[in-house]
Amino acid sequence: MAFLDRLDRAWSLSQSNLCVGLDPDPSKMPSRFSSQPNGIANFCIEIIDATADLVCAFKPQIAYFAAQRAEDQLETICNYIRSSHPDVVLILDAKRGDIGSTAANYAVEAFERFGADAVTVNPYLGTDSVEPFFEAGGGVIGLCRTSNPGGDDLQMLDTGGEPLFVRVAEMIAQRWSKLGDCGLVVGATYPNELSQVRQIVGDLPILVPGVGAQGGSADEVKVNGSRADGHGIIVNSSRAVLYASSGDDFASSARLVADNTRKSCSP
Amino acid sequence: MAFLDRLDRAWSLSQSNLCVGLDPDPSKMPSRFSSQPNGIANFCIEIIDATADLVCAFKPQIAYFAAQRAEDQLETICNYIRSSHPDVVLILDAKRGDIGSTAANYAVEAFERFGADAVTVNPYLGTDSVEPFFEAGGGVIGLCRTSNPGGDDLQMLDTGGEPLFVRVAEMIAQRWSKLGDCGLVVGATYPNELSQVRQIVGDLPILVPGVGAQGGSADEVKVNGSRADGHGIIVNSSRAVLYASSGDDFASSARLVADNTRKSCSP
Repeated sequence: MAFLDRLDRAWSLSQSNLCVGLDPDPSKMPSRFSSQPNGIANFCIEIIDATADLVCAFKPQIAYFAAQRAEDQLETICNYIRSSHPDVVLILDAKRGDIGSTAANYAVEAFERFGADAVTVNPYLGTDSVEPFFEAGGGVIGLCRTSNPGGDDLQMLDTGGEPLFVRVAEMIAQRWSKLGDCGLVVGATYPNELSQVRQIVGDLPILVPGVGAQGGSADEVKVNGSRADGHGIIVNSSRAVLYASSGDDFASSARLVADNTRKSCSP
Repeated sequence: MAFLDRLDRAWSLSQSNLCVGLDPDPSKMPSRFSSQPNGIANFCIEIIDATADLVCAFKPQIAYFAAQRAEDQLETICNYIRSSHPDVVLILDAKRGDIGSTAANYAVEAFERFGADAVTVNPYLGTDSVEPFFEAGGGVIGLCRTSNPGGDDLQMLDTGGEPLFVRVAEMIAQRWSKLGDCGLVVGATYPNELSQVRQIVGDLPILVPGVGAQGGSADEVKVNGSRADGHGIIVNSSRAVLYASSGDDFASSARLVADNTRKSCSP
Protein backbone atom coordinates (compact mmCIF):
# COMPACT_ATOMS: atom_id res chain seq x y z
CA MET A 1 0.00 0.00 0.00
CA ALA A 2 1.32 3.45 -0.89
CA PHE A 3 2.22 6.13 1.65
CA LEU A 4 -0.95 8.25 1.48
CA ASP A 5 -3.25 5.23 1.70
CA ARG A 6 -1.25 3.86 4.61
CA LEU A 7 -1.42 7.23 6.32
CA ASP A 8 -5.17 7.63 5.83
CA ARG A 9 -5.63 4.15 7.23
CA ALA A 10 -3.39 4.92 10.23
CA TRP A 11 -5.27 8.14 11.01
CA SER A 12 -8.57 6.33 10.75
CA LEU A 13 -7.61 3.32 12.86
CA SER A 14 -5.79 5.28 15.58
CA GLN A 15 -7.99 8.39 15.54
CA SER A 16 -4.70 10.10 16.33
CA ASN A 17 -2.59 12.74 14.59
CA LEU A 18 0.33 12.10 16.92
CA CYS A 19 3.71 10.89 15.69
CA VAL A 20 6.35 9.85 18.18
CA GLY A 21 9.82 10.81 17.05
CA LEU A 22 12.58 8.36 17.91
CA ASP A 23 15.66 10.47 18.72
CA PRO A 24 17.56 8.16 21.06
CA ASP A 25 20.15 10.01 23.11
CA PRO A 26 22.12 7.59 25.31
CA SER A 27 22.82 10.33 27.85
CA LYS A 28 19.08 10.78 28.46
CA MET A 29 17.96 7.16 28.42
CA PRO A 30 17.59 5.20 31.67
CA SER A 31 21.08 4.05 32.58
CA ARG A 32 20.38 0.34 32.31
CA PHE A 33 20.21 0.67 28.52
CA SER A 34 23.72 2.07 28.24
CA SER A 35 25.24 -1.25 29.30
CA GLN A 36 23.27 -3.26 26.75
CA PRO A 37 24.83 -3.96 23.36
CA ASN A 38 21.54 -3.09 21.65
CA GLY A 39 20.44 -0.58 24.27
CA ILE A 40 19.28 2.01 21.76
CA ALA A 41 16.99 -0.45 20.01
CA ASN A 42 15.74 -1.88 23.30
CA PHE A 43 14.90 1.58 24.61
CA CYS A 44 13.10 2.58 21.42
CA ILE A 45 11.13 -0.67 21.30
CA GLU A 46 9.86 -0.10 24.84
CA ILE A 47 8.76 3.41 23.82
CA ILE A 48 7.14 2.00 20.68
CA ASP A 49 5.17 -0.64 22.56
CA ALA A 50 4.07 1.91 25.16
CA THR A 51 2.71 4.36 22.58
CA ALA A 52 1.81 2.43 19.39
CA ASP A 53 -1.95 2.54 19.95
CA LEU A 54 -1.79 6.32 20.47
CA VAL A 55 -0.03 7.29 17.24
CA CYS A 56 -0.49 7.40 13.48
CA ALA A 57 3.26 7.28 12.85
CA PHE A 58 6.72 6.71 14.25
CA LYS A 59 9.56 8.85 13.00
CA PRO A 60 13.11 7.70 13.73
CA GLN A 61 15.69 10.45 13.20
CA ILE A 62 18.70 8.83 11.53
CA ALA A 63 21.31 11.29 12.85
CA TYR A 64 21.00 9.87 16.35
CA PHE A 65 21.80 6.41 15.05
CA ALA A 66 24.58 7.56 12.72
CA ALA A 67 26.38 9.35 15.56
CA GLN A 68 26.31 6.12 17.61
CA ARG A 69 27.35 3.81 14.73
CA ALA A 70 23.96 2.18 15.26
CA GLU A 71 22.40 1.84 11.81
CA ASP A 72 21.93 -1.86 12.58
CA GLN A 73 19.82 -0.95 15.60
CA LEU A 74 17.77 1.40 13.42
CA GLU A 75 17.14 -1.54 11.08
CA THR A 76 16.01 -3.59 14.08
CA ILE A 77 13.62 -0.83 15.17
CA CYS A 78 12.16 -0.37 11.69
CA ASN A 79 11.67 -4.11 11.29
CA TYR A 80 9.98 -4.21 14.68
CA ILE A 81 7.56 -1.40 13.84
CA ARG A 82 6.61 -3.05 10.55
CA SER A 83 6.08 -6.49 12.06
CA SER A 84 4.57 -5.66 15.45
CA HIS A 85 2.63 -2.50 14.62
CA PRO A 86 1.97 -2.86 10.89
CA ASP A 87 -0.79 -0.22 10.78
CA VAL A 88 1.49 2.54 12.07
CA VAL A 89 3.23 4.57 9.38
CA LEU A 90 7.03 4.61 9.43
CA ILE A 91 8.69 7.92 8.47
CA LEU A 92 12.46 8.06 8.21
CA ASP A 93 13.57 11.55 9.20
CA ALA A 94 16.75 12.01 7.20
CA LYS A 95 16.23 15.31 5.33
CA ARG A 96 18.13 13.91 2.39
CA GLY A 97 18.84 16.03 -0.63
CA ASP A 98 21.03 15.11 -3.58
CA ILE A 99 20.80 14.49 -7.29
CA GLY A 100 20.63 11.65 -9.78
CA SER A 101 22.26 8.38 -8.82
CA THR A 102 23.14 9.72 -5.36
CA ALA A 103 19.50 10.46 -4.64
CA ALA A 104 18.65 7.00 -5.93
CA ASN A 105 21.03 5.54 -3.35
CA TYR A 106 19.36 7.53 -0.59
CA ALA A 107 16.04 6.11 -1.79
CA VAL A 108 17.47 2.60 -1.41
CA GLU A 109 18.61 3.54 2.09
CA ALA A 110 15.18 4.82 3.13
CA PHE A 111 12.80 2.43 1.42
CA GLU A 112 14.75 -0.83 1.03
CA ARG A 113 17.22 -0.85 3.89
CA PHE A 114 14.94 0.70 6.50
CA GLY A 115 11.59 -0.08 4.87
CA ALA A 116 10.19 3.40 5.52
CA ASP A 117 6.83 4.43 4.10
CA ALA A 118 8.15 7.95 3.60
CA VAL A 119 11.35 9.94 4.02
CA THR A 120 11.89 13.62 4.75
CA VAL A 121 13.82 15.51 2.06
CA ASN A 122 15.29 18.97 1.57
CA PRO A 123 13.82 20.89 -1.39
CA TYR A 124 16.79 23.17 -2.14
CA LEU A 125 17.96 21.07 -5.11
CA GLY A 126 14.58 21.18 -6.85
CA THR A 127 12.06 18.75 -8.25
CA ASP A 128 14.39 16.56 -10.31
CA SER A 129 16.38 15.82 -7.15
CA VAL A 130 13.39 14.06 -5.56
CA GLU A 131 12.27 12.10 -8.62
CA PRO A 132 14.41 9.06 -7.67
CA PHE A 133 12.48 8.80 -4.40
CA PHE A 134 9.16 8.80 -6.23
CA GLU A 135 10.50 6.32 -8.80
CA ALA A 136 11.38 4.01 -5.91
CA GLY A 137 7.72 4.10 -4.88
CA GLY A 138 8.07 5.69 -1.47
CA GLY A 139 6.53 8.79 0.07
CA VAL A 140 8.42 12.08 0.08
CA ILE A 141 7.96 14.76 2.73
CA GLY A 142 9.63 18.03 1.78
CA LEU A 143 10.89 20.65 4.21
CA CYS A 144 8.84 23.81 3.75
CA ARG A 145 8.93 25.99 6.89
CA THR A 146 11.23 24.72 9.61
CA SER A 147 10.75 25.27 13.32
CA ASN A 148 14.12 26.92 14.08
CA PRO A 149 14.59 30.72 14.23
CA GLY A 150 17.25 30.57 11.50
CA GLY A 151 14.65 29.13 9.15
CA ASP A 152 13.87 32.78 8.38
CA ASP A 153 17.27 33.30 6.72
CA LEU A 154 16.14 31.82 3.41
CA GLN A 155 12.56 30.62 3.91
CA MET A 156 11.23 34.14 4.56
CA LEU A 157 13.09 35.84 1.71
CA ASP A 158 10.67 37.71 -0.52
CA THR A 159 10.40 36.01 -3.91
CA GLY A 160 8.22 38.30 -6.00
CA GLY A 161 5.60 38.99 -3.36
CA GLU A 162 5.67 35.67 -1.52
CA PRO A 163 8.22 34.25 0.90
CA LEU A 164 10.33 31.36 -0.33
CA PHE A 165 8.52 28.77 1.80
CA VAL A 166 5.30 29.57 -0.10
CA ARG A 167 7.10 28.81 -3.38
CA VAL A 168 8.24 25.53 -1.88
CA ALA A 169 4.68 24.70 -0.81
CA GLU A 170 3.48 25.49 -4.32
CA MET A 171 6.22 23.37 -5.89
CA ILE A 172 5.32 20.41 -3.73
CA ALA A 173 1.57 20.80 -4.21
CA GLN A 174 1.67 21.44 -7.94
CA ARG A 175 4.64 19.39 -9.15
CA TRP A 176 5.69 16.79 -6.60
CA SER A 177 2.15 15.62 -5.99
CA LYS A 178 1.90 14.64 -9.66
CA LEU A 179 5.00 12.45 -9.32
CA GLY A 180 3.90 10.43 -6.31
CA ASP A 181 2.77 10.48 -2.70
CA CYS A 182 4.10 13.50 -0.87
CA GLY A 183 3.70 15.87 2.04
CA LEU A 184 5.42 18.85 3.67
CA VAL A 185 7.11 19.85 6.90
CA VAL A 186 5.91 22.99 8.69
CA GLY A 187 7.11 23.72 12.21
CA ALA A 188 4.60 24.05 15.06
CA THR A 189 6.37 27.23 16.10
CA TYR A 190 4.79 29.04 13.11
CA PRO A 191 1.01 28.48 13.40
CA ASN A 192 0.12 31.29 10.97
CA GLU A 193 2.37 29.89 8.29
CA LEU A 194 0.91 26.44 8.96
CA SER A 195 -2.54 27.82 8.17
CA GLN A 196 -1.16 29.52 5.04
CA VAL A 197 0.47 26.30 3.83
CA ARG A 198 -2.75 24.34 4.44
CA GLN A 199 -4.56 26.75 2.12
CA ILE A 200 -1.95 26.18 -0.60
CA VAL A 201 -1.58 22.40 -0.46
CA GLY A 202 -5.18 21.21 -0.21
CA ASP A 203 -5.38 17.85 1.52
CA LEU A 204 -1.68 16.93 1.43
CA PRO A 205 -0.32 15.71 4.77
CA ILE A 206 1.72 18.15 6.82
CA LEU A 207 4.33 16.83 9.22
CA VAL A 208 4.55 19.24 12.14
CA PRO A 209 7.60 19.06 14.40
CA GLY A 210 8.25 21.48 17.22
CA VAL A 211 5.52 20.50 19.66
CA GLY A 212 6.74 19.81 23.18
CA ALA A 213 10.40 20.57 23.87
CA GLN A 214 10.54 23.23 21.11
CA GLY A 215 7.52 25.09 22.48
CA GLY A 216 4.88 24.68 19.77
CA SER A 217 1.26 24.21 20.86
CA ALA A 218 -0.53 21.01 19.82
CA ASP A 219 -3.91 22.75 20.07
CA GLU A 220 -2.83 25.57 17.76
CA VAL A 221 -1.44 23.03 15.30
CA LYS A 222 -4.80 21.26 15.21
CA VAL A 223 -6.71 24.48 14.62
CA ASN A 224 -4.34 25.82 11.97
CA GLY A 225 -3.20 22.68 10.20
CA SER A 226 -5.84 19.97 10.16
CA ARG A 227 -8.14 19.21 7.26
CA ALA A 228 -11.94 19.18 7.34
CA ASP A 229 -11.83 15.52 8.42
CA GLY A 230 -9.74 16.43 11.48
CA HIS A 231 -6.64 14.68 10.14
CA GLY A 232 -4.10 15.77 7.52
CA ILE A 233 -1.46 16.58 10.15
CA ILE A 234 1.27 14.39 11.59
CA VAL A 235 2.16 16.10 14.85
CA ASN A 236 5.57 15.00 16.02
CA SER A 237 6.81 14.95 19.58
CA SER A 238 10.20 13.43 20.32
CA ARG A 239 12.06 14.51 23.44
CA ALA A 240 8.98 15.37 25.52
CA VAL A 241 7.78 11.79 25.10
CA LEU A 242 11.05 9.84 25.08
CA TYR A 243 12.50 11.53 28.13
CA ALA A 244 9.34 12.16 30.16
CA SER A 245 11.13 10.25 32.90
CA SER A 246 14.63 8.85 33.19
CA GLY A 247 13.52 6.35 35.84
CA ASP A 248 12.07 2.87 35.61
CA ASP A 249 8.72 4.46 34.79
CA PHE A 250 10.06 5.96 31.56
CA ALA A 251 7.71 3.94 29.34
CA SER A 252 4.53 4.67 31.30
CA SER A 253 5.57 8.33 31.60
CA ALA A 254 6.13 8.43 27.84
CA ARG A 255 2.66 7.00 27.34
CA LEU A 256 1.12 9.66 29.59
CA VAL A 257 2.77 12.53 27.72
CA ALA A 258 1.93 10.95 24.36
CA ASP A 259 -1.70 10.51 25.35
CA ASN A 260 -2.01 14.14 26.46
CA THR A 261 -0.43 15.38 23.24
CA ARG A 262 -2.63 13.05 21.22
CA LYS A 263 -5.74 14.47 22.86
CA SER A 264 -4.66 18.03 22.06
CA CYS A 265 -3.81 17.48 18.41
CA SER A 266 -6.35 14.86 17.29
CA PRO A 267 -10.00 15.08 16.18
CA MET B 1 44.94 21.83 11.85
CA ALA B 2 41.67 23.44 10.77
CA PHE B 3 39.99 22.85 7.42
CA LEU B 4 41.14 25.95 5.54
CA ASP B 5 44.76 25.55 6.66
CA ARG B 6 44.68 21.88 5.72
CA LEU B 7 43.23 22.77 2.33
CA ASP B 8 45.78 25.50 1.61
CA ARG B 9 48.52 23.05 2.52
CA ALA B 10 47.01 20.36 0.27
CA TRP B 11 46.75 22.74 -2.68
CA SER B 12 50.31 23.87 -2.16
CA LEU B 13 51.82 20.40 -1.75
CA SER B 14 49.89 18.75 -4.60
CA GLN B 15 49.74 21.75 -6.92
CA SER B 16 46.36 20.28 -7.81
CA ASN B 17 42.77 21.49 -7.57
CA LEU B 18 41.44 18.02 -8.31
CA CYS B 19 39.25 16.11 -5.86
CA VAL B 20 38.39 12.49 -6.55
CA GLY B 21 34.87 11.65 -5.45
CA LEU B 22 34.40 8.18 -4.00
CA ASP B 23 30.95 7.02 -5.17
CA PRO B 24 31.39 3.24 -5.15
CA ASP B 25 28.75 1.49 -7.25
CA PRO B 26 29.17 -2.30 -7.03
CA SER B 27 27.58 -2.75 -10.45
CA LYS B 28 30.34 -0.68 -12.05
CA MET B 29 33.35 -1.95 -10.09
CA PRO B 30 35.54 -4.76 -11.50
CA SER B 31 33.71 -7.97 -10.72
CA ARG B 32 36.39 -9.41 -8.44
CA PHE B 33 35.46 -6.84 -5.78
CA SER B 34 31.85 -7.97 -5.60
CA SER B 35 32.88 -11.32 -4.07
CA GLN B 36 35.00 -9.72 -1.36
CA PRO B 37 33.42 -8.98 2.03
CA ASN B 38 35.07 -5.54 2.05
CA GLY B 39 35.06 -5.12 -1.71
CA ILE B 40 33.83 -1.53 -1.60
CA ALA B 41 36.65 -0.45 0.68
CA ASN B 42 39.22 -2.46 -1.27
CA PHE B 43 38.12 -0.88 -4.55
CA CYS B 44 38.21 2.63 -3.11
CA ILE B 45 41.61 2.10 -1.53
CA GLU B 46 43.08 1.04 -4.87
CA ILE B 47 41.63 4.20 -6.44
CA ILE B 48 42.98 6.29 -3.56
CA ASP B 49 46.51 4.88 -3.87
CA ALA B 50 46.44 5.37 -7.65
CA THR B 51 45.47 9.03 -7.45
CA ALA B 52 46.55 10.43 -4.06
CA ASP B 53 49.54 12.38 -5.42
CA LEU B 54 47.31 14.01 -8.05
CA VAL B 55 44.63 15.44 -5.76
CA CYS B 56 44.06 18.03 -3.05
CA ALA B 57 41.08 16.13 -1.62
CA PHE B 58 39.06 12.93 -1.57
CA LYS B 59 35.31 13.18 -1.23
CA PRO B 60 33.42 10.02 -0.29
CA GLN B 61 29.67 10.28 -0.94
CA ILE B 62 27.92 8.65 2.00
CA ALA B 63 24.74 7.64 0.12
CA TYR B 64 26.63 4.96 -1.78
CA PHE B 65 27.75 3.41 1.48
CA ALA B 66 24.39 3.77 3.21
CA ALA B 67 22.59 1.98 0.37
CA GLN B 68 25.02 -0.94 0.74
CA ARG B 69 24.92 -1.09 4.55
CA ALA B 70 28.61 -0.29 4.35
CA GLU B 71 29.25 2.51 6.84
CA ASP B 72 31.97 0.32 8.36
CA GLN B 73 33.75 0.26 5.01
CA LEU B 74 33.45 4.04 4.80
CA GLU B 75 35.14 4.22 8.21
CA THR B 76 37.92 1.99 6.88
CA ILE B 77 38.37 4.23 3.84
CA CYS B 78 38.43 7.43 5.90
CA ASN B 79 40.93 5.93 8.35
CA TYR B 80 43.07 4.84 5.40
CA ILE B 81 43.10 8.30 3.82
CA ARG B 82 44.04 9.95 7.10
CA SER B 83 46.83 7.50 7.90
CA SER B 84 48.29 6.81 4.45
CA HIS B 85 47.73 10.16 2.75
CA PRO B 86 47.59 12.60 5.65
CA ASP B 87 48.16 15.69 3.52
CA VAL B 88 45.06 15.07 1.42
CA VAL B 89 41.90 16.77 2.66
CA LEU B 90 38.93 14.51 3.47
CA ILE B 91 35.50 15.90 2.60
CA LEU B 92 32.43 13.90 3.58
CA ASP B 93 29.75 14.54 0.99
CA ALA B 94 26.55 14.12 2.97
CA LYS B 95 24.59 17.31 2.30
CA ARG B 96 23.25 17.20 5.83
CA GLY B 97 20.75 19.75 7.05
CA ASP B 98 18.92 19.73 10.35
CA ILE B 99 18.62 21.76 13.52
CA GLY B 100 19.84 21.81 17.09
CA SER B 101 20.74 18.51 18.68
CA THR B 102 20.06 16.64 15.45
CA ALA B 103 22.61 18.75 13.60
CA ALA B 104 25.02 18.16 16.48
CA ASN B 105 24.63 14.42 15.93
CA TYR B 106 25.36 14.83 12.22
CA ALA B 107 28.50 16.74 13.24
CA VAL B 108 29.57 13.77 15.37
CA GLU B 109 28.94 11.49 12.40
CA ALA B 110 31.07 13.60 10.04
CA PHE B 111 33.92 14.74 12.25
CA GLU B 112 34.25 12.06 14.94
CA ARG B 113 33.01 8.88 13.33
CA PHE B 114 34.45 9.49 9.87
CA GLY B 115 37.13 12.02 10.82
CA ALA B 116 36.32 14.33 7.92
CA ASP B 117 37.98 17.73 7.61
CA ALA B 118 34.77 19.16 6.18
CA VAL B 119 31.21 18.09 5.41
CA THR B 120 28.79 19.32 2.77
CA VAL B 121 25.57 20.82 4.15
CA ASN B 122 22.29 22.12 2.78
CA PRO B 123 21.62 25.80 3.58
CA TYR B 124 17.79 25.73 3.45
CA LEU B 125 17.44 25.69 7.26
CA GLY B 126 19.59 28.79 7.75
CA THR B 127 22.65 29.80 9.70
CA ASP B 128 21.66 28.47 13.13
CA SER B 129 21.29 25.01 11.61
CA VAL B 130 25.00 24.87 10.76
CA GLU B 131 26.32 26.30 14.03
CA PRO B 132 26.67 22.82 15.61
CA PHE B 133 29.09 21.85 12.82
CA PHE B 134 31.22 24.91 13.46
CA GLU B 135 31.06 24.31 17.21
CA ALA B 136 32.41 20.82 16.59
CA GLY B 137 35.42 22.42 14.92
CA GLY B 138 34.99 21.02 11.41
CA GLY B 139 34.71 22.67 8.03
CA VAL B 140 31.31 23.33 6.48
CA ILE B 141 30.71 23.47 2.72
CA GLY B 142 27.26 24.82 1.89
CA LEU B 143 25.31 24.03 -1.26
CA CYS B 144 24.92 27.23 -3.26
CA ARG B 145 24.27 26.49 -6.96
CA THR B 146 23.87 22.80 -7.75
CA SER B 147 24.77 21.16 -11.05
CA ASN B 148 21.36 19.61 -11.83
CA PRO B 149 18.79 21.29 -14.13
CA GLY B 150 16.21 21.28 -11.33
CA GLY B 151 18.52 23.44 -9.25
CA ASP B 152 16.80 26.33 -11.04
CA ASP B 153 13.47 25.60 -9.30
CA LEU B 154 14.47 27.45 -6.13
CA GLN B 155 18.06 28.62 -6.60
CA MET B 156 17.14 30.91 -9.53
CA LEU B 157 14.06 32.45 -7.93
CA ASP B 158 14.30 36.22 -7.90
CA THR B 159 14.74 37.52 -4.37
CA GLY B 160 14.58 41.29 -4.65
CA GLY B 161 16.83 41.62 -7.66
CA GLU B 162 19.15 38.69 -7.05
CA PRO B 163 18.59 34.97 -7.48
CA LEU B 164 18.37 32.89 -4.32
CA PHE B 165 21.79 31.28 -4.82
CA VAL B 166 23.37 34.75 -4.58
CA ARG B 167 21.67 35.24 -1.20
CA VAL B 168 23.07 31.89 -0.12
CA ALA B 169 26.56 32.90 -1.27
CA GLU B 170 26.22 36.15 0.67
CA MET B 171 24.98 34.33 3.78
CA ILE B 172 27.93 31.96 3.70
CA ALA B 173 30.50 34.67 2.95
CA GLN B 174 29.18 37.19 5.46
CA ARG B 175 27.81 35.06 8.30
CA TRP B 176 29.11 31.51 8.15
CA SER B 177 32.70 32.61 7.57
CA LYS B 178 32.60 34.42 10.92
CA LEU B 179 31.58 31.19 12.68
CA GLY B 180 34.32 28.96 11.34
CA ASP B 181 35.99 27.49 8.27
CA CYS B 182 33.59 27.24 5.37
CA GLY B 183 33.18 26.99 1.61
CA LEU B 184 30.47 26.62 -1.02
CA VAL B 185 29.31 24.22 -3.71
CA VAL B 186 28.79 25.56 -7.23
CA GLY B 187 28.24 23.14 -10.11
CA ALA B 188 30.64 23.08 -13.06
CA THR B 189 27.63 23.14 -15.36
CA TYR B 190 27.12 26.83 -14.52
CA PRO B 191 30.44 28.60 -15.27
CA ASN B 192 28.91 32.09 -15.29
CA GLU B 193 27.38 31.61 -11.89
CA LEU B 194 30.70 30.21 -10.66
CA SER B 195 32.36 33.46 -11.67
CA GLN B 196 29.58 35.45 -9.98
CA VAL B 197 29.94 33.48 -6.75
CA ARG B 198 33.72 33.94 -6.78
CA GLN B 199 33.16 37.71 -6.86
CA ILE B 200 30.88 37.49 -3.83
CA VAL B 201 32.85 35.15 -1.59
CA GLY B 202 36.39 36.48 -1.90
CA ASP B 203 38.92 33.74 -1.25
CA LEU B 204 36.57 31.12 0.21
CA PRO B 205 37.01 27.65 -1.31
CA ILE B 206 34.46 26.54 -3.86
CA LEU B 207 33.78 22.84 -4.32
CA VAL B 208 32.86 22.27 -7.96
CA PRO B 209 31.13 19.01 -8.88
CA GLY B 210 29.80 18.25 -12.33
CA VAL B 211 33.07 17.87 -14.25
CA GLY B 212 33.35 14.68 -16.27
CA ALA B 213 30.23 12.51 -16.40
CA GLN B 214 27.93 15.51 -15.85
CA GLY B 215 29.49 17.47 -18.72
CA GLY B 216 31.13 20.44 -17.01
CA SER B 217 34.47 21.66 -18.36
CA ALA B 218 37.51 21.62 -16.07
CA ASP B 219 39.14 24.41 -18.07
CA GLU B 220 36.11 26.66 -17.74
CA VAL B 221 35.99 25.95 -14.03
CA LYS B 222 39.60 27.02 -13.67
CA VAL B 223 39.04 30.25 -15.58
CA ASN B 224 35.81 31.16 -13.81
CA GLY B 225 36.38 29.85 -10.31
CA SER B 226 40.01 29.97 -9.28
CA ARG B 227 41.58 32.65 -7.13
CA ALA B 228 44.55 34.83 -8.02
CA ASP B 229 46.86 32.13 -6.64
CA GLY B 230 45.42 29.56 -9.06
CA HIS B 231 43.75 27.59 -6.27
CA GLY B 232 40.53 28.26 -4.32
CA ILE B 233 38.60 25.56 -6.21
CA ILE B 234 38.12 21.90 -5.37
CA VAL B 235 37.18 20.34 -8.69
CA ASN B 236 35.47 17.05 -8.15
CA SER B 237 35.35 14.15 -10.56
CA SER B 238 33.80 10.88 -9.45
CA ARG B 239 32.43 8.49 -12.06
CA ALA B 240 34.79 9.52 -14.88
CA VAL B 241 37.74 8.55 -12.68
CA LEU B 242 36.34 5.58 -10.76
CA TYR B 243 34.91 3.81 -13.78
CA ALA B 244 37.47 4.80 -16.41
CA SER B 245 37.85 1.06 -16.96
CA SER B 246 36.01 -1.94 -15.55
CA GLY B 247 38.94 -4.22 -16.34
CA ASP B 248 42.07 -5.11 -14.42
CA ASP B 249 43.54 -1.78 -15.51
CA PHE B 250 40.89 0.17 -13.60
CA ALA B 251 43.38 1.81 -11.23
CA SER B 252 45.87 2.87 -13.93
CA SER B 253 42.97 4.08 -16.10
CA ALA B 254 41.61 6.06 -13.15
CA ARG B 255 45.03 7.62 -12.69
CA LEU B 256 45.16 8.60 -16.36
CA VAL B 257 41.77 10.32 -16.28
CA ALA B 258 42.58 11.98 -12.95
CA ASP B 259 45.87 13.29 -14.29
CA ASN B 260 44.23 14.76 -17.37
CA THR B 261 41.54 16.45 -15.29
CA ARG B 262 44.15 17.71 -12.85
CA LYS B 263 46.10 19.33 -15.69
CA SER B 264 42.97 21.08 -16.96
CA CYS B 265 41.81 22.47 -13.64
CA SER B 266 45.05 23.22 -11.78
CA PRO B 267 47.49 26.16 -11.90
